Amino acid sequence: MKINRALAALPAGYLFQEVNHRVQQYLAENPEAKLLRLGIGDVTLPLPAAVCRAFSEAALEMGTPEGFRGYGPDYGYDFLIDAIRAHDYAPRGVKIDQDEVFISDGAKSDVGALQELFAPDAIIAVTDPVYPVYVDSNAMAGRLGQYENERWSRAVYLPCTAENGFVPQMPDAPVDVLYLCSPNNPTGTALTRSQLSGIVDWALRRDVLIVFDAAYKGFIRDQDVPMSIYEIPGAEKCAVECCSFSKTAGFTGVRCAYTVIPKTVQYEGDSLNRLWKRRQSTKLNGVSYPVQRAAAAVYTDEGWQQVQSNLDYYLGNARVILEGLRQAGYEAFGGVNSPYVWMRTPAGTPSWDFFDTLLRRAQVVCTPGAGFGPAGEGYLRLTAFNTRDNTRQAVERILKLL
Amino acid sequence: MKINRALAALPAGYLFQEVNHRVQQYLAENPEAKLLRLGIGDVTLPLPAAVCRAFSEAALEMGTPEGFRGYGPDYGYDFLIDAIRAHDYAPRGVKIDQDEVFISDGAKSDVGALQELFAPDAIIAVTDPVYPVYVDSNAMAGRLGQYENERWSRAVYLPCTAENGFVPQMPDAPVDVLYLCSPNNPTGTALTRSQLSGIVDWALRRDVLIVFDAAYKGFIRDQDVPMSIYEIPGAEKCAVECCSFSKTAGFTGVRCAYTVIPKTVQYEGDSLNRLWKRRQSTKLNGVSYPVQRAAAAVYTDEGWQQVQSNLDYYLGNARVILEGLRQAGYEAFGGVNSPYVWMRTPAGTPSWDFFDTLLRRAQVVCTPGAGFGPAGEGYLRLTAFNTRDNTRQAVERILKLL
Repeated sequence: MKINRALAALPAGYLFQEVNHRVQQYLAENPEAKLLRLGIGDVTLPLPAAVCRAFSEAALEMGTPEGFRGYGPDYGYDFLIDAIRAHDYAPRGVKIDQDEVFISDGAKSDVGALQELFAPDAIIAVTDPVYPVYVDSNAMAGRLGQYENERWSRAVYLPCTAENGFVPQMPDAPVDVLYLCSPNNPTGTALTRSQLSGIVDWALRRDVLIVFDAAYKGFIRDQDVPMSIYEIPGAEKCAVECCSFSKTAGFTGVRCAYTVIPKTVQYEGDSLNRLWKRRQSTKLNGVSYPVQRAAAAVYTDEGWQQVQSNLDYYLGNARVILEGLRQAGYEAFGGVNSPYVWMRTPAGTPSWDFFDTLLRRAQVVCTPGAGFGPAGEGYLRLTAFNTRDNTRQAVERILKLL
Repeated sequence: MKINRALAALPAGYLFQEVNHRVQQYLAENPEAKLLRLGIGDVTLPLPAAVCRAFSEAALEMGTPEGFRGYGPDYGYDFLIDAIRAHDYAPRGVKIDQDEVFISDGAKSDVGALQELFAPDAIIAVTDPVYPVYVDSNAMAGRLGQYENERWSRAVYLPCTAENGFVPQMPDAPVDVLYLCSPNNPTGTALTRSQLSGIVDWALRRDVLIVFDAAYKGFIRDQDVPMSIYEIPGAEKCAVECCSFSKTAGFTGVRCAYTVIPKTVQYEGDSLNRLWKRRQSTKLNGVSYPVQRAAAAVYTDEGWQQVQSNLDYYLGNARVILEGLRQAGYEAFGGVNSPYVWMRTPAGTPSWDFFDTLLRRAQVVCTPGAGFGPAGEGYLRLTAFNTRDNTRQAVERILKLL
């Protein structure tokens, strides 16, 4: 049996393993240490009551002859698709057809699977630092060449740093696909309408597909930051959009997401919508019915209010981090339309060194920016998913380091 | 943007669409017709009470600060993995380590994704007739060459017909991977211990990987039919096994399954277990916590009893079909360790013609065997998932055709 050498050669996913390893080592040496964790990208507030109720009621329904449902529609139930269209798109002037929304078990699944629609030799561009799934899923498919010096030979990296305001400079080199995440993981920064317009225009001119990861759109509070790439004219011809209930509605342990693929996204005379339908119906059997009912409850008046209140809580934490760091003279970014704050390490300290400083001298766990790509070196990611008290305390401890 | 031409060129999934089209057309012409559907491969009995209760309770748990769970373990919760090992393997003398079981949202997902572990030019063998996912997932990855005359040029087809007792003749041609399903979809036949041993020995001699699809193992009642390929010595070195709660516990709309990959399955010095871990952790975020609680409830005393009672009900339907057809002189197969009965059409009538006869003269819907591959021509699949009454009535109507 011949194995997939590209998958076998993939470097291990070191980042969170290494974070964990250092934390465990520190705890072994300091068993009484009270660590404050601002490293996790996972929500912590319980599921909103309305969501929880719909979820459990639908589970009970499945135990009755009238309420039982077997295989659901491959691409999701209409009740959820229509709720998404009515609440996430229509109010923003974006018209999406029913068969352009695809329900899935996670944006990670969709983002990882979308590359199956691309030619084996398609050229992939990513912003740097970057959510590792874009890169790894393409590397596994053998599309990225060799890995050397923390870079894949066939990938195009677009650095996003404080120097360019975290807005990538579009490359002249040929590119087939650009992965773009806004609000961004890990930098916490978000693209404004005009910044995103510039990128869409570039993609249209160059015949580039944009995979737009909008997993964090629920945190957007700034009117000038689009919640959907389809708010930008022309994007319906060059972009697919991945959205998730994970971070916005606390679904990291529930698993529901959706991807939008307009039928107008066409390349080589074929439509990505058609290809995705064929892919999804062949490889999946849809998403759990009670999970889809839970997701639909996000769009009820009660559910929506509860979700917004949770988002505001996390955004409040982000503000505590951002303002605390800035008042103390640190350079810090993001954290306004995002649960992530991206801080510059002092005096060019390498990410992992400052990670160790925070761990050992402040008992605060963060994520070293270098783990997200070469351009993340010299930065750290802090997350707003802890409690308000712990967040305040963590910031105080960091400030005491000065 | 360059698209995946292998995916774009894939023939559309005609089978169930075409079945549906003919049914709709008949109903349009005969609006008063009372159709009996024995075509569906979907369960119909409600979720067992114990499962349903665990499912809804876990959903409620997620609404409490103490009970909330975010991201679960990538490969599944230990409570479910351990229940699987203790109930599905230990009693059959099969030792499986905790990190050899991978929880997923469906056997279809796993079966479709496993090909990512194979080299782009690995040679794939399938039994014929066949569950289309094995073929289509490899075709999408560009591994099967050209499609002509209902065959892919690079695939190896192993006919399974009444003439060889539905046991494939192992090929002399080089093969990297064999997909094997027992109890089989669509033929409803199951491999005995000695038949399966023969295939495992062949795989070990030839360095072939067996992807063993055991999605229907819950229906096995015959002691001589293994419920796991790992009951065959040596299989732990050459086989991965995909199992599902869909057909066995009524989870088609709930979505939970598992795949076993022993660490002893090694090729080219690498372990498929390691490769699958890398693949899963990169592309998925685990399965819904309440869904995993529901699946674990299958293994409680109460849940197990309820599940077996449902399985017995379906098997009773299968017996009604099998015995009715045989008494009337039809050749019929399967239906003993399986919810599927595979009947030979009378006097060599083509599948689709006899499908039309059943539809128009008996108002019974079945699935034409030819839709599952060239060697399915001249057969039909009937399923045991309708009610007992409807099943009896359908068989009576078929017999009246004589």
